[in-house]
Formats: sequence, structure tokens, C-alpha cells
Amino acid sequence: MPVGLVPPDPAALFPVPGVRLGATAARIRKADRLDLLVVALDAGTRVAGVFTRNRFCAAPVSVAKEHLAGRSEIRALVVNTGNANAGTGEEGVRRARQTCEATAQLLGCAAEAVLPFSTGVVMESLPVERIVAGLPGALADLAPAHWGQAAEAIMTTDTCPKAISRRIMVDGVPVTITGISKGAGMIRPNMATMLGFIATDAPVGQVLLDEWVREVADQSFNCITVDGDTSTNDSLMLIATGRAPLPPIEDRRSPACAALRQAILDVAVFLAQAIVRDGEGATKFITVRVEGGKSREECRQVAFAVAHSPLVKTAFFASDPNLGRILAAIGYAGVEDLDVGGVRVHLGDVLVAERGARSPAYREEDGQRAMAEAEIVVAIYLGRGSAQATVWTCDFSYDYVRINADYRS
Amino acid sequence: MPVGLVPPDPAALFPVPGVRLGATAARIRKADRLDLLVVALDAGTRVAGVFTRNRFCAAPVSVAKEHLAGRSEIRALVVNTGNANAGTGEEGVRRARQTCEATAQLLGCAAEAVLPFSTGVVMESLPVERIVAGLPGALADLAPAHWGQAAEAIMTTDTCPKAISRRIMVDGVPVTITGISKGAGMIRPNMATMLGFIATDAPVGQVLLDEWVREVADQSFNCITVDGDTSTNDSLMLIATGRAPLPPIEDRRSPACAALRQAILDVAVFLAQAIVRDGEGATKFITVRVEGGKSREECRQVAFAVAHSPLVKTAFFASDPNLGRILAAIGYAGVEDLDVGGVRVHLGDVLVAERGARSPAYREEDGQRAMAEAEIVVAIYLGRGSAQATVWTCDFSYDYVRINADYRS
Repeated sequence: MPVGLVPPDPAALFPVPGVRLGATAARIRKADRLDLLVVALDAGTRVAGVFTRNRFCAAPVSVAKEHLAGRSEIRALVVNTGNANAGTGEEGVRRARQTCEATAQLLGCAAEAVLPFSTGVVMESLPVERIVAGLPGALADLAPAHWGQAAEAIMTTDTCPKAISRRIMVDGVPVTITGISKGAGMIRPNMATMLGFIATDAPVGQVLLDEWVREVADQSFNCITVDGDTSTNDSLMLIATGRAPLPPIEDRRSPACAALRQAILDVAVFLAQAIVRDGEGATKFITVRVEGGKSREECRQVAFAVAHSPLVKTAFFASDPNLGRILAAIGYAGVEDLDVGGVRVHLGDVLVAERGARSPAYREEDGQRAMAEAEIVVAIYLGRGSAQATVWTCDFSYDYVRINADYRS
Repeated sequence: MPVGLVPPDPAALFPVPGVRLGATAARIRKADRLDLLVVALDAGTRVAGVFTRNRFCAAPVSVAKEHLAGRSEIRALVVNTGNANAGTGEEGVRRARQTCEATAQLLGCAAEAVLPFSTGVVMESLPVERIVAGLPGALADLAPAHWGQAAEAIMTTDTCPKAISRRIMVDGVPVTITGISKGAGMIRPNMATMLGFIATDAPVGQVLLDEWVREVADQSFNCITVDGDTSTNDSLMLIATGRAPLPPIEDRRSPACAALRQAILDVAVFLAQAIVRDGEGATKFITVRVEGGKSREECRQVAFAVAHSPLVKTAFFASDPNLGRILAAIGYAGVEDLDVGGVRVHLGDVLVAERGARSPAYREEDGQRAMAEAEIVVAIYLGRGSAQATVWTCDFSYDYVRINADYRS
């Protein structure tokens, strides 16, 4: 059961003019589930992306990067679940290219105009023949309204599809932003998450789009962790079809630009948090906010140390305010000259620790009350500067072990 | 159930002339269990130690470091379990000092001659009055043969006491080395482990002893991890009573010296591995050996990334050769210029991956057979240099969650 997350209402997912989506059950790993998605983009669409920094990056990631760098106009994304096509060497790259070629042939565009994405089990051969066989079905399903199916088609151990829309006015013109994401395990994005696709009809220029995708990833997907495992397949795509009747948006100082960027960021943060809320075995949604650091980097170091500690995560699962575990994680986070006498820790509205020790005002029953919530904020003040960072994570339960001990079976 | 580890046979634990041990049940946290240990050292004994690098280091760690640095002769160690006296601020330091003072008074030595150690729950007040009340009982129990009780008295979530002896001949004189350790969770030592005490009657000079304790920690306790959580209380003490009838051992180039150092290292490696074999919820003992790196540091980075990955650890628990998870961990370990095409992975004697992908010769049934063992070696060849490193760890089971969700109750 995801924490504070319900399946999206299809009626609340607004089509983005210029984008059509089609999904099918191609039996890539399991029967009777959507596992192949094609996203077709109208001519004139601009696409920007960020990808995993895992050195074992997946074959489709290599091919997508190459196609994006080639700057031929991107006309389609093709996404399969059930197999990550990672740790598959040169044969994997060949199969990712075959997927692009088959899609391009059916759509009547160049293979370089197609970006491939895969997610699922690592180090197994991609059944490209099933993908090729499934493509006509996915294309027959193409429609602007199919964001809901698309969100479903990219799920792996997710228990809930993740999708959201925003509509804002830019210079009196309604602009739509709709995004989907997936991911529940192997989640500690380093550049982007497992898979996230955000589209808008705003005519955003390529330079600005490239900047935004990095900035947005940095403030959304790069702030989440489930298990600390950076995936081989993380990809975030930002798509601007330019179909809204607006002049090109290229000056980041314009007020319209700021509003649009904020709306895109809101969508990205929702999708990133949705991944944590549906994290494998999650029963709690935890925000770790670190303030008063010398740099954003050291704040992130501390936040991730707390968010990755199996001891902290199991204590949250147990709703046990065993808060010394948080202090221990702060202490080993790698801030070498940290003066623990300046550290303060809040759990929700409860002051837990100050001056390097338990606060005299702290009462166990207050800690217990704060731990019992399904959504918890841990606020840590380092007392040595003005930088800050926030990380979102979930707890560590029996179900995490069950899901990952069973995943392939 | 620890993996490949049985309780030590008390008859096989040799006394170390110059060392007496006494334990008692002081009711520090639980009734009816040994939880207070005094180790009394004869005059002339030399002691060297290494301690946690956690910035929230425990009060007894601060006091022990101070007393060791003072170079007054150390005459006793006092160790309690049930409470770590960490995250307890200045009041914690006061209580650690009170413990030393009470011990010193009973033994007739200076408070600075006593080193305090604590282990157990973090951020709770040390019940120093119970320790003081328990000390006479511990002292009444002092005897050279009590290493077995001592190993029991320092356990927390350990299911099995950890102790070992070696006897070697040095220049025709028998020399004894006996050591004990404890720890099962919050184990990712950075300098030393939770608690490890190794004593010998060899007359090792102080300079050499100080060097050895660091070198030995680096090749034993600093190579293990259970959950990646570096404790606030890690301490390793190396004790040389000098009672063996030998001239002072001060020249590290002498053959006698090499043999003694190796025997001490053997004891330390056994004790460190014993902690992993009895790691919280462990069902597998896993050796991660990384070879062919440019530096030992990058080999350790890769080994720890694999050893800490919850996805890898749950796959081991399930005996599921989901080996792509190992590749993914190698890929995100932070070796920025790693050429994955040069990476090779063996599981036991099975070649799993080569040239960045699954080996053509790999068969799932071979992987399954290797994963079914209780003790597994993962060998990773980076193919970029001649450095190597080994890390020992365990798997991640339901019981890890159970133990840590229940620990304080």
C-alpha cells in the first residue's frame, strides 16, 4: 500500500497537444499486463533528457543519449518493462537499436528519431522479437488521452501508477504539463529516476529545455532514495511539443518562464515523491531536511546517510523513536569537522536532540506520537552555515525483503 | 543462527599471563545476564587502541582516548553492555569518568589508569549507579581463565560469544594471544569494530603496538560490514602484558616479530569475521574480493558498494542468482572512469559476467548452485590495475528487520 498516494483519476490527466500514447501487452516477462509503450511526438517537438551515472548504464540509455546528442528531431519514445537490457554488452546495444528501427519503420521516421527505454530485471537478454511483434498493437492504441495506460505500462514492482497534470496560464494562454514516472526499488537516482516522462505543449526553446531538465532532476528525482541502489536505467525526459499558441519561450528571466518552470518542477516533485510513497514495502513517507550546513553537498551527505541507514529505516517501520540511530548516522555521514555540540534534531514538531545529546525537554511519549504518523519530517540543524537540502525516503519493512527475495520468481 | 560459527570451547581459550577478567550481572538494561566486565592488567602492561571515526563518538570513547593519550600506565578496562553512553553530551562524559573513578578506587589505581567502554542503545542516560553497585561483584570474579564469561558479558544482539586463542613459539618461548569481540548490528567499522579486545603476553614495545593496532584494524575489523551503519562506540584494544620471558620486541624487521604480528592479525580476522557470521539476521557469510583496481581505495569502494546494496543482500538471502544487481552496484560505486567492458565477476567458481555482460558460458543452474552455499565468495576483477581489497558481509533477511524493529522493546 503506497503512503498517501492513490491511482490517478484518468479524467484529471490532461492530454498534451502533440503527444499520443499507445500501450500493449507484449508478454515480455509476464502475460496479461501492459508492458510496451510507444509515445509518438508531433513534428516540431523538442526533447531534453538526463540519464543515470551508473557506469553499467543500460544499452537503451547509451542509444538514447546518442540519438539525443545527434539532434535529429525526436519523433517517438519506446518503453518496455520486464527487462532492463542492462549488463548486456554489445548484443544489448544491438537489440536496443533493433527496437528503434522497428518503431521507426512503422511510424515512417528515422531510427535516430526514436529513443528507447527499458526497465526490469538486469543482465538478461532483451526479447526483442516480442517487442517487434507487440509494436503494431501499441501503435494501433495511440491516442492523446492515454496517459493513464502509459503510466500503467511502465510499472515493475510499483503497486500504483504515477501520473499528474497541471494547467497554468502563460500570457493568457492555457498551457498543459503532464508527466508519468515509475520505480519502487533500485531507487537512488543520480541524475534522474528509473523512468520519468514529462510533456508540455509550451514552446520551450532547446537550450532552456536542456537547462531545465537538469535543474528539475536535481530538485526532484535526485532528492529521493528507497534503498540507495542507483539504477542502471534511470532516465528523465522533458518534452515540449510547442503546440500552445505562444511565442518561443527562451528567456529564463521572463515571469511567464518562471511560472512554467515552477509548474514543471511541481510535476517532477510529485512524480519523484510518488516513487518513494510506493517504495518497495514502504509504510512511511519520510522527509529528511538538513539545514545550517556549510554547503548543499554536505547537507545532502547527511540527509542521505540518515535516509540510507537500515537501522533508522527499520526504527521508522517499527514506529520506535530509537533516535540515537539518527545521531549515529549524522555522525558517520562524512562531515569530518562537524561539531556535534551544535547539532539539533526535530522529529515533526518534537525537539529530540540538541547540543549533541537528547534534549532535556524530550519525552518518549512525544517521540512515539511523532513516529506513529504515516508522514514524518526529520529536521536536522547542523549549526555551521546557511546551506540546506531535502531528501525524501521511506521505511524498511518485512515486505522490502519479501519483494526483493521474490522479484524474479 | 550464526553462519559457520560455534560458541568457543572455554578450554581452548588460553589465559594470557598478566590479564584477569571478571564479569557480573549488574541489571544495566536487562535482568539475569552478564552485562559488566572488568579486565585487570598487571603492572608493566602496554595498551594501544583505535576508535570509531563517528563524529557522535560515545562518551567512553572520548574518555578512553584521553586516558590512552595521557600515557599513564593502563591497569584496567571496564565494559558495560545495555547502554552505549553515546549521544549523551557532557553528562555522558561525567558518567564515564565516574565509572573509571569507582573502578580505580576498588583496584587501588588512578582513574586515568582505567579505560571505559560501553555498548548498547544510543542516546539514553548511562545508569552509572548500577555499574558502581555491580563493580565489587565483577572484581570478586577476577580470574585469568574467565575469557569465556568476558566474551558473553559484552554481547548485545549477538547470538554467540566471540573469542579465540593462538599459541605460537617466539624464539623458543611460547607466547599466547587471546581475543574477544562483540557486535551484530550497526556494524561498518571505520577504524575498529564495536568492541574488540586482544591480549598477548609478548613484550611488544609501545611504538610497535600502536602501529600494529592500526594495521591490524585496517585488515580485519575495517573490512567488515553488516548494515553500513558505523557505530558510535567502535573500539579495538591491543594489550601486551610483557609477561613472556622474552627481550622487548621492538624491531618490526625481525622474524619473530613477523610471526607474532601475523598471529595477532589471524586472531583479529577471526574475531571480525565472527561478527559478520553472527550479523543480525545473517543466513549467509559473503566474501567480496575486488582485484585489478588502480588503488586499494577504489577496490574497497566497489566491495562496499556490493556489500551494502540491500538488493544484493536480499538476493543472497533468497539464494537467487539475480546477479545484475551486483553489476549495478559495481557501476554506481563511484569509480568514475571505470570501463565496464573490462569487468569480470565470479560467484564461487562460476564465471558470471565478463566484458560488461553475462558470460556466454554462464548457466542459471550453476549460479543457483553457487548461491545455495552458506559461504559465498564474490570475486570482481576490474581489469585496470593491480590493487585489491576484501570485504566480509552477510545477507539481509526478514530477521534483520525483526531484530531492529524490536531492539529496544
